[in-house]
Amino acid sequence: MKTRVFLVGAGFIADIHAESYRRFVPEAEIVGVYSRREEHARGFADKHGIPRWSTDLDETLSREDYDVVDICLPNHLHATATIRAASSGKHVILEKPLCLTLEEADEMIAVCKAHNRKLMYAEELCFAPKYERVRQLAHEGALGSIYYLRQCEKHSGPHSDWFYDLDQSGGGALMDMGCHGFAWFRWMLGREQKPISVFAHMRTGLIHGNRTRCEEHSISVVEFDGGTVGIVENSWAKLGGMEDRVEVCGTGGVMYADLFMGNSALTYSEKGYGYAMEKAGATHGWTFTTVEEAFNQGYPQELLHFINCVRTDTSPVTTGEDGRAVLEMLYAAYCSAGRGAKVTLPFRQKVTKPIDLWLGSPE
Amino acid sequence: MKTRVFLVGAGFIADIHAESYRRFVPEAEIVGVYSRREEHARGFADKHGIPRWSTDLDETLSREDYDVVDICLPNHLHATATIRAASSGKHVILEKPLCLTLEEADEMIAVCKAHNRKLMYAEELCFAPKYERVRQLAHEGALGSIYYLRQCEKHSGPHSDWFYDLDQSGGGALMDMGCHGFAWFRWMLGREQKPISVFAHMRTGLIHGNRTRCEEHSISVVEFDGGTVGIVENSWAKLGGMEDRVEVCGTGGVMYADLFMGNSALTYSEKGYGYAMEKAGATHGWTFTTVEEAFNQGYPQELLHFINCVRTDTSPVTTGEDGRAVLEMLYAAYCSAGRGAKVTLPFRQKVTKPIDLWLGSPE
Amino acid sequence: MKTRVFLVGAGFIADIHAESYRRFVPEAEIVGVYSRREEHARGFADKHGIPRWSTDLDETLSREDYDVVDICLPNHLHATATIRAASSGKHVILEKPLCLTLEEADEMIAVCKAHNRKLMYAEELCFAPKYERVRQLAHEGALGSIYYLRQCEKHSGPHSDWFYDLDQSGGGALMDMGCHGFAWFRWMLGREQKPISVFAHMRTGLIHGNRTRCEEHSISVVEFDGGTVGIVENSWAKLGGMEDRVEVCGTGGVMYADLFMGNSALTYSEKGYGYAMEKAGATHGWTFTTVEEAFNQGYPQELLHFINCVRTDTSPVTTGEDGRAVLEMLYAAYCSAGRGAKVTLPFRQKVTKPIDLWLGSPE
Amino acid sequence: MKTRVFLVGAGFIADIHAESYRRFVPEAEIVGVYSRREEHARGFADKHGIPRWSTDLDETLSREDYDVVDICLPNHLHATATIRAASSGKHVILEKPLCLTLEEADEMIAVCKAHNRKLMYAEELCFAPKYERVRQLAHEGALGSIYYLRQCEKHSGPHSDWFYDLDQSGGGALMDMGCHGFAWFRWMLGREQKPISVFAHMRTGLIHGNRTRCEEHSISVVEFDGGTVGIVENSWAKLGGMEDRVEVCGTGGVMYADLFMGNSALTYSEKGYGYAMEKAGATHGWTFTTVEEAFNQGYPQELLHFINCVRTDTSPVTTGEDGRAVLEMLYAAYCSAGRGAKVTLPFRQKVTKPIDLWLGSPE
Repeated sequence: MKTRVFLVGAGFIADIHAESYRRFVPEAEIVGVYSRREEHARGFADKHGIPRWSTDLDETLSREDYDVVDICLPNHLHATATIRAASSGKHVILEKPLCLTLEEADEMIAVCKAHNRKLMYAEELCFAPKYERVRQLAHEGALGSIYYLRQCEKHSGPHSDWFYDLDQSGGGALMDMGCHGFAWFRWMLGREQKPISVFAHMRTGLIHGNRTRCEEHSISVVEFDGGTVGIVENSWAKLGGMEDRVEVCGTGGVMYADLFMGNSALTYSEKGYGYAMEKAGATHGWTFTTVEEAFNQGYPQELLHFINCVRTDTSPVTTGEDGRAVLEMLYAAYCSAGRGAKVTLPFRQKVTKPIDLWLGSPE
Repeated sequence: MKTRVFLVGAGFIADIHAESYRRFVPEAEIVGVYSRREEHARGFADKHGIPRWSTDLDETLSREDYDVVDICLPNHLHATATIRAASSGKHVILEKPLCLTLEEADEMIAVCKAHNRKLMYAEELCFAPKYERVRQLAHEGALGSIYYLRQCEKHSGPHSDWFYDLDQSGGGALMDMGCHGFAWFRWMLGREQKPISVFAHMRTGLIHGNRTRCEEHSISVVEFDGGTVGIVENSWAKLGGMEDRVEVCGTGGVMYADLFMGNSALTYSEKGYGYAMEKAGATHGWTFTTVEEAFNQGYPQELLHFINCVRTDTSPVTTGEDGRAVLEMLYAAYCSAGRGAKVTLPFRQKVTKPIDLWLGSPE
Repeated sequence: MKTRVFLVGAGFIADIHAESYRRFVPEAEIVGVYSRREEHARGFADKHGIPRWSTDLDETLSREDYDVVDICLPNHLHATATIRAASSGKHVILEKPLCLTLEEADEMIAVCKAHNRKLMYAEELCFAPKYERVRQLAHEGALGSIYYLRQCEKHSGPHSDWFYDLDQSGGGALMDMGCHGFAWFRWMLGREQKPISVFAHMRTGLIHGNRTRCEEHSISVVEFDGGTVGIVENSWAKLGGMEDRVEVCGTGGVMYADLFMGNSALTYSEKGYGYAMEKAGATHGWTFTTVEEAFNQGYPQELLHFINCVRTDTSPVTTGEDGRAVLEMLYAAYCSAGRGAKVTLPFRQKVTKPIDLWLGSPE
Repeated sequence: MKTRVFLVGAGFIADIHAESYRRFVPEAEIVGVYSRREEHARGFADKHGIPRWSTDLDETLSREDYDVVDICLPNHLHATATIRAASSGKHVILEKPLCLTLEEADEMIAVCKAHNRKLMYAEELCFAPKYERVRQLAHEGALGSIYYLRQCEKHSGPHSDWFYDLDQSGGGALMDMGCHGFAWFRWMLGREQKPISVFAHMRTGLIHGNRTRCEEHSISVVEFDGGTVGIVENSWAKLGGMEDRVEVCGTGGVMYADLFMGNSALTYSEKGYGYAMEKAGATHGWTFTTVEEAFNQGYPQELLHFINCVRTDTSPVTTGEDGRAVLEMLYAAYCSAGRGAKVTLPFRQKVTKPIDLWLGSPE
């Protein structure tokens, strides 16, 4: 019997999840989709051949006729949706970042534990095939002792409006994409190394004008107690399509990996064509034509892993605790940018959303 | 109910097929594996969790308790195995090249037709995701009218001994890999353009010494009646790992795609590591670390397509007729190399194996 | 005392020569420039600070107050200009190709010899630093025994009108650029290996419509008596800027080198910029921004070598004999495309211009 | 008449200078070379055809029969050598970094000014052709408003022993190479933007064991008052050869440029060859074969500019003041690493050498 998944959300990332389930996770079936707006819900269900759609979130999360909720909602809804779903017996797959506050994180983890439900934190970089090759070689010892990591994720800004509203997103480019870098560092280094400080620089007002008060660009330098240093760079102001790349230096070697340009065909087209790459803009002239973006970023592998965890009752490699640890690092980064100083971990402060630590509280 | 596949052969390519079925073709189950040698058959079955193994080819092909035979045998056995399997009711998936002679090809096609069995010709380049993006853009008109194609497949020589024996393989680098380029040209250009001539240059004695009389290097220039010209380059004497790349030029643009280097992470390792790339040799110093080789070459997509064709009784995109058309081009190429002259198509000559057209008949 | 050079021609290539002399050949001074049209001659002289200009070719070539003539004229004027200049005592630097016919070539060589003047054939690829590194490694034995060479030079068509007129140019993309590949093969392989055959495929009518009857695209396969095979590919129909690249395969290794993309910075610019690359077209979106094009192609090194040859009375590495040998290969290639068959060398036929061997004589 | 240059130093960088003068700066002649050790001085003079050599530094700097001293000595000797040379009437070309302390810097600038001698600070990245293309496009507006710069220079450690001794070098990877990044940022952004803070992270003990107490790896984040942020990354622990690359992001585009891998031919050699790249180590297997390293890094262009400044009595684009500004940033970076905190500029503290600000004063 297949594992029944209800997809909560019908935006950009939900679309990637739906494609990933359909093509690569035969043990799962999507039994329904929720969107706030009827035309989105209905259109999404039609496109992906999903039998049921809903615009009622409460009802959706309370139903008991499916096994796993897959939450692809705006960040500020992550906590309540997770808690409600777990309380009514569902395992939870939750898109990054985990939620807006550490208090929410603690409660989400506690509720899922209390109901014996899995909280599966969807960090696809831990499943991206090329990055997993990097990790494998590092673990084989091919690179010696790792002392430096760099991860960049940059594009020209998100598709959906809610990202630009800091009350819904909790922050900008760092909140949106820095969570990837922080999670990947922890995944690469394993439990033996803990992050001990973050220094961050942020900037807004680059290309989005009044549309957002969120940071459009951020640089974060993370120190780990084993001595490794990591740099995470994120941007909503980088033109020319998505960039997702890593560098690793160890005492025995180096690796470079690039998920977009580094997996693409190279094209020159006088008149252009339909689609080149996430956020690529125009397609005439030279372009880097991407191939199997979802697969190369690790989405199908991630969802397959999660469904298998549910089916075999095993623990996922990326949990609520991982999401919480990343959120703590995001806090520290915003705080660092606000103070203009390095911030040490562990770090906890009472805020409504992470970006307040940079911009100040909004009262 | 799953489609039951019997894997006939337990070498390099059978291993790729087995991995591809397991990870990406949930509708299929491998019910058995044949190898001439017991330790190979048993080891392969153990490795891939296949319930049954056999060293009796006749018995294997005559059984009626499975649906599809997947033939990964040396080239000279393709025809008889196909004919026997189809005669006893199985659909046939057959690794390239189709067989050694046009007479065999005609009989294979006829027998499969007579028994209403599908003859599915396994040309994975027609499914390789990056090359399919190239084809898609070409069909969108992004490149204007295509006037030039190039496909290279080069490495340092096959794993298995039988390739080097021209009686088993029928030819060397061209027979082994030129079939890919010829098939891909036909796939790119569609039925509208027919190949009208082949000019080929071949050479042996480069790095394999007395191990083989087969050509180690070949260049083939193919003209199509629509005016497009294609170059296929193949080598068993190219060091540094597998190369598989294409170039396309049209009146409106160009594309370049590379399946190995172009999908890899870049590594420098002082001490080396386990595996970099098909035929890569040593892994210390700089290497191009490949990722998901089977997927990037199109094997899982190909096998999924074939299994779906069987399940829905539809025609595969690569058939026995395609394999035959490619074989005719291989004939023409060997003949061209033998004559030192361009050879026009259609071309048919009575030979025991294609390479005789270059080396002369062996009596 | 500086060596006095008179530049005959004021087009695209003359501009590169002038820049090269000024920046990199201090032993030379350009004493004058000739162009058929006064505004060109005058403008060129102004731009490059050349003291004298002329529109009288005869007078220019007959003067005796300079040492070296540097001929950058349309192909059909090469022979007469060379002969006149040498006859009046000048050493000759001559842009490729040498001339239109073998009869001209023989006479040019004889006249220069009779007057004891150097005939220096300007094949810049023999001086391009990256290609010279390739040659150096090959000669060091780093690649083992070389069995395969490929050289591509492709762009979207020449700047000047005369190239499109086969009476002035003698041929199209092959005449214009195939001479580079043929010369580079000979340079790589040295005197030990002689070309023994050429097979060529040509096509016209791709993107230039009625502007030209010349071939817009050509592929040439050359066999050498040592067993090496070379492919030269040329195009006037390749969009996206200049391409100049080589591949070398030997029994001990391989090399890839690219003079344009492979030396460039990678740029994404929303609004575009002034200049990206020879024939690059628009510069918005992604572009490959070239750097020091003349230097990377070997022009300054070539001219410096020639001037030193004059000053020290030594033989240049690329002579009239080399240009003649290349012209013979061009003949063979056109003839091969015309016959649809491989043509063996040595080859000589009486024609007015090489392209007649493909298109047939124009009477 | 040529400008007479005396080369003071005969190590790795002096060799690059000598080659650069000889090939690309015809207006200069090297009249002598100094090295502490006779065999070095004599060997260098022989190799480069220099008429005179000396092992007496005082005598060398006091002579009056040449015009320009080109100082390629260990860092701790820069100040005294400069002062002595300028005092006895020579213009000074001085390799980076300017000197060890701000006090020295002030005195060097003052003395040169007092004697009306030019202090020409040899920052070759301001002349590297590819980086100059980046700067040109940025200034054209092709990239919009620049908000991010990154410059990396990394290798496996210097050739000469003195670099490892912090009393001679004043610091490690940052002192050695971070000066390039800091200088290049200032050059890119121009006088309009001033650096206002530096945050740095450093690490030692990676691959050089007890050989050095200097930092082997450093990351520096620099804020400019116009809002641009820059990252400089340096390493003496990066295997696989030299890395020198930049990234630039602006509101209208991005650029990527790479001086070593990005200008190289790609080679696979089974047996290896003589030389691939600065610090490349072994050359068998895959290597990036560099081409014209000195030219691509800007050395000849830099020296030509300096000699022209002397000959025409104009100001160089990189002066003692620039070297001093960079030194101040180096101070701030070491101080930041020591404090674990961002340090604001202007910054001045009394120390014996920059690295003391990180390691603490050595008493």
